[in-house]
Amino acid sequence: MTSTPSAPRVGVVMGSRSDWETMQHAVALLERLGIAHETRVVSAHRTPDLLFQYAEQAVERGLQVIIAGAGGAAHLPGMLAAKTRVPVFGVPVQSKALNGMDSLLSIAQMPTGIPVGTLAIGKAGAGNAALLAAAVLALTDPAVAEALDAFRATQTQDVLDRPDPRSA
Amino acid sequence: MTSTPSAPRVGVVMGSRSDWETMQHAVALLERLGIAHETRVVSAHRTPDLLFQYAEQAVERGLQVIIAGAGGAAHLPGMLAAKTRVPVFGVPVQSKALNGMDSLLSIAQMPTGIPVGTLAIGKAGAGNAALLAAAVLALTDPAVAEALDAFRATQTQDVLDRPDPRSA
Amino acid sequence: MTSTPSAPRVGVVMGSRSDWETMQHAVALLERLGIAHETRVVSAHRTPDLLFQYAEQAVERGLQVIIAGAGGAAHLPGMLAAKTRVPVFGVPVQSKALNGMDSLLSIAQMPTGIPVGTLAIGKAGAGNAALLAAAVLALTDPAVAEALDAFRATQTQDVLDRPDPRSA
Amino acid sequence: MTSTPSAPRVGVVMGSRSDWETMQHAVALLERLGIAHETRVVSAHRTPDLLFQYAEQAVERGLQVIIAGAGGAAHLPGMLAAKTRVPVFGVPVQSKALNGMDSLLSIAQMPTGIPVGTLAIGKAGAGNAALLAAAVLALTDPAVAEALDAFRATQTQDVLDRPDPRSA
Amino acid sequence: MTSTPSAPRVGVVMGSRSDWETMQHAVALLERLGIAHETRVVSAHRTPDLLFQYAEQAVERGLQVIIAGAGGAAHLPGMLAAKTRVPVFGVPVQSKALNGMDSLLSIAQMPTGIPVGTLAIGKAGAGNAALLAAAVLALTDPAVAEALDAFRATQTQDVLDRPDPRSA
Amino acid sequence: MTSTPSAPRVGVVMGSRSDWETMQHAVALLERLGIAHETRVVSAHRTPDLLFQYAEQAVERGLQVIIAGAGGAAHLPGMLAAKTRVPVFGVPVQSKALNGMDSLLSIAQMPTGIPVGTLAIGKAGAGNAALLAAAVLALTDPAVAEALDAFRATQTQDVLDRPDPRSA
Amino acid sequence: MTSTPSAPRVGVVMGSRSDWETMQHAVALLERLGIAHETRVVSAHRTPDLLFQYAEQAVERGLQVIIAGAGGAAHLPGMLAAKTRVPVFGVPVQSKALNGMDSLLSIAQMPTGIPVGTLAIGKAGAGNAALLAAAVLALTDPAVAEALDAFRATQTQDVLDRPDPRSA
Amino acid sequence: MTSTPSAPRVGVVMGSRSDWETMQHAVALLERLGIAHETRVVSAHRTPDLLFQYAEQAVERGLQVIIAGAGGAAHLPGMLAAKTRVPVFGVPVQSKALNGMDSLLSIAQMPTGIPVGTLAIGKAGAGNAALLAAAVLALTDPAVAEALDAFRATQTQDVLDRPDPRSA
Repeated sequence: MTSTPSAPRVGVVMGSRSDWETMQHAVALLERLGIAHETRVVSAHRTPDLLFQYAEQAVERGLQVIIAGAGGAAHLPGMLAAKTRVPVFGVPVQSKALNGMDSLLSIAQMPTGIPVGTLAIGKAGAGNAALLAAAVLALTDPAVAEALDAFRATQTQDVLDRPDPRSA
Repeated sequence: MTSTPSAPRVGVVMGSRSDWETMQHAVALLERLGIAHETRVVSAHRTPDLLFQYAEQAVERGLQVIIAGAGGAAHLPGMLAAKTRVPVFGVPVQSKALNGMDSLLSIAQMPTGIPVGTLAIGKAGAGNAALLAAAVLALTDPAVAEALDAFRATQTQDVLDRPDPRSA
Repeated sequence: MTSTPSAPRVGVVMGSRSDWETMQHAVALLERLGIAHETRVVSAHRTPDLLFQYAEQAVERGLQVIIAGAGGAAHLPGMLAAKTRVPVFGVPVQSKALNGMDSLLSIAQMPTGIPVGTLAIGKAGAGNAALLAAAVLALTDPAVAEALDAFRATQTQDVLDRPDPRSA
Repeated sequence: MTSTPSAPRVGVVMGSRSDWETMQHAVALLERLGIAHETRVVSAHRTPDLLFQYAEQAVERGLQVIIAGAGGAAHLPGMLAAKTRVPVFGVPVQSKALNGMDSLLSIAQMPTGIPVGTLAIGKAGAGNAALLAAAVLALTDPAVAEALDAFRATQTQDVLDRPDPRSA
Repeated sequence: MTSTPSAPRVGVVMGSRSDWETMQHAVALLERLGIAHETRVVSAHRTPDLLFQYAEQAVERGLQVIIAGAGGAAHLPGMLAAKTRVPVFGVPVQSKALNGMDSLLSIAQMPTGIPVGTLAIGKAGAGNAALLAAAVLALTDPAVAEALDAFRATQTQDVLDRPDPRSA
Repeated sequence: MTSTPSAPRVGVVMGSRSDWETMQHAVALLERLGIAHETRVVSAHRTPDLLFQYAEQAVERGLQVIIAGAGGAAHLPGMLAAKTRVPVFGVPVQSKALNGMDSLLSIAQMPTGIPVGTLAIGKAGAGNAALLAAAVLALTDPAVAEALDAFRATQTQDVLDRPDPRSA
Repeated sequence: MTSTPSAPRVGVVMGSRSDWETMQHAVALLERLGIAHETRVVSAHRTPDLLFQYAEQAVERGLQVIIAGAGGAAHLPGMLAAKTRVPVFGVPVQSKALNGMDSLLSIAQMPTGIPVGTLAIGKAGAGNAALLAAAVLALTDPAVAEALDAFRATQTQDVLDRPDPRSA
Repeated sequence: MTSTPSAPRVGVVMGSRSDWETMQHAVALLERLGIAHETRVVSAHRTPDLLFQYAEQAVERGLQVIIAGAGGAAHLPGMLAAKTRVPVFGVPVQSKALNGMDSLLSIAQMPTGIPVGTLAIGKAGAGNAALLAAAVLALTDPAVAEALDAFRATQTQDVLDRPDPRSA
């Protein structure tokens, strides 16, 4: 497990080491926005006890958002949410056969009672999970709000600065 | 627009009056958890200016979460998110022909840069959007945290109290 | 929880009381084949601790097969399998919006390491889960083998006896 | 933004620079048919205000058709259509995970009130959007009608001239 | 075939009499907007010669838009477009088994060369086909432009006038 | 099993008695076209030996076409085709959960070596299987050719006689 | 157009030259079975008149089966069937974006009245279309029956001869 | 056919030699767990008689589980199950066009009466079929139970030992 110097506010967990290729896009944006975080492999199926422990300690450890990425029968986000009231945002990792449609449905179609906020399949979803976490933190943290506003202004300006799709 | 006496913290918006049948499940849970909220019909396609105005004023009006329900080419949640940094949770309303699969993809598959936390299709998703909003507010509001914990404990106990699926 | 007089060999669990309409077809066939069983509501999301406890005790309680039915983001079968080596057969309950396609993918698309034997969506799958459980027990229990053979012979004869689809 | 010398009659917009690979097929056909046009990156999510401005000025700027390409939760065509009565033709860009099925549904499944004429996924759709725009202009512009008729005659002759699929 | 007193500008055709339930929503909006039109059953599969004749005469008969509704392997819109340069807008009728997904793909996925502007599945698509036809006519007909603007203003006001989804 | 007085030329088989509601549309058209046929319930899963026997005897019994309807994991058409060179036309019966998409794929997606000509899902496919069988017989039987031509002419005339979709 | 010396009995047509990569598998099997055939590019959308002419002349030209391959909104098989009573077998060519699911539905989901016998997506379907054509011809042509029986026996023996999947 | 020295307890069959790439993952795990097995190509469509023979002899030959892999219209698992009461676990091989969705539905959607326990698409499913077979054998074979427990403990420890997804 890696963590930034200050206590992590966002936990980025994933069901398999192979999910890192996707989930690093969440970490990159958290770093850019200066949000303390940690990353960890937690497999719902191979390490269910670790999953429960991680979720049970989330509140006391000060985690404010959990970002969970998983593919296929992606149980990790939903089971974390079942064990903590810390908001869980799920990232459907693009699976080999079904391109992440299975991951998306396994994460999004939670029954009433335990919510998971689901993002898009793949790296776009991973990045957006970080931005959604930032939006939550920004509600009470002006520094995050400012960083998020700046990020959004920059990406807007990037489009405005290059209106011609053909230019290099 | 209706609102609870105190200033609304959660805005529940929907693209059409017909979405109320679904979205009332969000409102019911917000009320049960004692979270001040407002409800409003805002159509991305028929009232785009209202959509922009609603999103632009969200921060200053004190909204902390926007829950947006829409069906079919469900643009409402994503366009709200494009215009505010208040966290937006999207509820895919079950559409007539495609059963909400179109709604789900139109809400969940946002590109990098603007996130929407997507819930399940239909009333389960609407209820869970309220619970996810509560989880966000609970980060800094002990009363909501307590109400949410109580709600979760109750639904757990309801299952434990009636283990036999055949009993009346 | 209900159980037949003798110690249950098959546990039939389901994520919600509403799944009973589907899962009763498993129970009906277990009864017809004379296989001791128990039924119980165990929600992966609302009662995760019960789920873990149920799975952890499965071997010592003498369960030889667990049949688990769930709908939507159907995490119950996979999480049970993650916590016990007793064979788990999953029944995708037909969900409201997506007709059980979400349930099927959430149950079947398990990653390497933890298997769930998945049956068809709905009551056909529930019945077949019971027959598959019987096939497993029949490997070492001649009485079950005989009952299963008889059942299969009967259903074959039922078709042969009425070859004309138009007859009453 | 690039534009042909004469005032553009068709605006070709796209949600991201990466959509150019697809949308250039629309531009190529507009050029072949001699239809004045402009191209521009307009992101529904990153530059919503630009989107509104573009649509609001479309009539006065003399645009007669807007061709809009977008992928994933493709909100660009529908939101443009919500803000102008100029006909909008949408091109679903092939997305990474879901191959453009999400793009297609997000564009085609518009609710009653605001129409988008949707073309096929990918470059075939981009080319056809240009041809459909030409068909609209041809209603009152004999030169475009003639060019379109010639194009259609040529593509017919191309098939007739080489009836053997094996010939080089 | 029925037609309004003045020469029809929009042809509304459908593959089967059973499609009328859907396509009447196109006719209703054309009537509301005062656009002369005609309606006709033309089956691509049962009356292919009529289909060709209808399309071949479209230009000379003064049709400016053809709206074609069909379900299943919906060949009508594409084959009409193959035989005329009059813009064709296709309406995927909701099919019995596949809910119109087959209709949508059969209409939208046209190869390069012959475009069909596809609307949503079912009655929403039928109504929007009429609005898109009106948008095309409005380019050169101020009366239609005015009627369309008024229609759009009314539907906007309808939403604004009743912001509370719970009001009667 | 029922059969017309003369030796049956077309065998209409189905996996379950419940498929009769669909398959009767094949029988109705065979009767209308005066084609001798038989109907029989043959279950791939419950009566595999009967399936093999039926297919093995098809040539010697003089069957010229086998029409096979089945739903879900619809193995009947493909397994019949594996055991006879008599042309097999498969009818995907609309299944409860997946609306026949599973039936369609299970019948159509045969690997190289053993073909099944697949028709549409449900009663349209059943009727068309009969028409395709007639088209095969018509190659060498002038009476069937004449009956088929007359049927096709009638259905064409039915459309031409009532061009207005609104007439009673 | 190429044809074998003797008059072609099977016409292999395809909507585009790019379909040859798929359709050559039909031709290869027809050649192996010694069945006279011809191949031709006929585009439903770019050469609709040629399509009609080809179908109208099929009977008089002595074609006994038409094999038609097309991708996307694959109208070729169904429109050929609408214009001739010669049996039409359709091959869904694997499309770029949707992998042939659009092709499959556009070909298989024909309405009652005009049948197309649909094969699998891609080269497996192309090969099987040839085998199904052979099965039809074999009904009255002993030489084809013999060749088909030999082909089937060979492919069976090929499997039996190498039971170990690991052997070279 | 290859077999381990002792009499095989698990039969691993597949519909085509090309399925070996997938099914070897089942064999690898059986070997690791020390479970005697055999492998064989058995094609439902090309060698239906072999399929029946293999299934009919399964009980007497001492097979306790059959693992069957197949792609597309994957009839092998279901037809084996129709002919033996030995538990059959099906592995949907990833197909070329539809990525195994057809395989999954053809295997999983069995009607009531004959069950197949279905695993995930592709190599994950193949591996899990072996683990599920082991779980069945472990019910009465302590050595297998021990080996399976050890395997599961190892894969758990593998995750715990490397919690950081970024470490090499």
